[in-house]
Amino acid sequence: MNLSDYIRDVPDFPKPGIVFKDITPLLADTSALQHTIDAMKVSIAPLGVDKIAAIESRGFLFGVPVARDLGVGFIPIRKAGKLPWRTRSIEYELEYGSETIHIHEDAIQSGERVAIDDLLATGGTMAASVRLIEALGGQVAACSVVIELGFLNGRQHLHGHDLHTLLRLD
Amino acid sequence: MNLSDYIRDVPDFPKPGIVFKDITPLLADTSALQHTIDAMKVSIAPLGVDKIAAIESRGFLFGVPVARDLGVGFIPIRKAGKLPWRTRSIEYELEYGSETIHIHEDAIQSGERVAIDDLLATGGTMAASVRLIEALGGQVAACSVVIELGFLNGRQHLHGHDLHTLLRLD
Repeated sequence: MNLSDYIRDVPDFPKPGIVFKDITPLLADTSALQHTIDAMKVSIAPLGVDKIAAIESRGFLFGVPVARDLGVGFIPIRKAGKLPWRTRSIEYELEYGSETIHIHEDAIQSGERVAIDDLLATGGTMAASVRLIEALGGQVAACSVVIELGFLNGRQHLHGHDLHTLLRLD
Repeated sequence: MNLSDYIRDVPDFPKPGIVFKDITPLLADTSALQHTIDAMKVSIAPLGVDKIAAIESRGFLFGVPVARDLGVGFIPIRKAGKLPWRTRSIEYELEYGSETIHIHEDAIQSGERVAIDDLLATGGTMAASVRLIEALGGQVAACSVVIELGFLNGRQHLHGHDLHTLLRLD
């Protein structure tokens, strides 16, 4: 199955000059959805992780089904003001401005192995998530994404952590 | 399993006087997560749905695993400015102010049967989602939530649509 058949290019979204990768056709198609979750599961299974973490909100779409398939727990990483309990946070730079993400302080026990799931790898949010998990004493076993935008060189921000990619777009 | 053991009450979040129902302990616990998704799947399976729709962003946590288990497609319902293609939208009243949610125009084929998943039933967002799906020609087979806040009487907004609840809190 070629997953790119289920990704719709939407020009000039969210702003002029950007071509948005719309995954709603992939989500709506039974076979493409099963294939995507199967592939993420298969690539993470050998790593023996204790938890799957995923990043709000499109990472949530894949993180929980992969956690379910692997029989492990799930950790949400969220934007400011969303997680209700005590959090650890990190601010990181985007192309324009900055962003902050949070994780609950009790999300990870020291030494737990965690895989991070997201939709899209541009690097910044994934790298910040790695630092949050390591700050809580977790080990990042792998970063796993549906789509990697190769031309953005997001991989270089991951400092040696494995990046599992289902679909690399250049 | 008593799911309420995995819900953490956080007082005064997001504002003074509100007790927030934090589901991160449920998500982090392998057994509680499996139990929750199993129960949603079992309650929806007999309805023979074509799609699962879920509401950004905490609905995403349960919608995709249930869609995967049932072997059907998934439809995201999102806040303004998030879906990139042509959308149908609806504005609805909240306790303070209003909210708008969107669905892609091609998300549903006329006559398809859809179940809507969300975390929390307070009524307004679920009722608006029902109207969006019906506006596209879909049939709402059921509304399914992890937590129903019974004292808010959200059920009354659903005008006869079935509400499947895992945990009712009064």
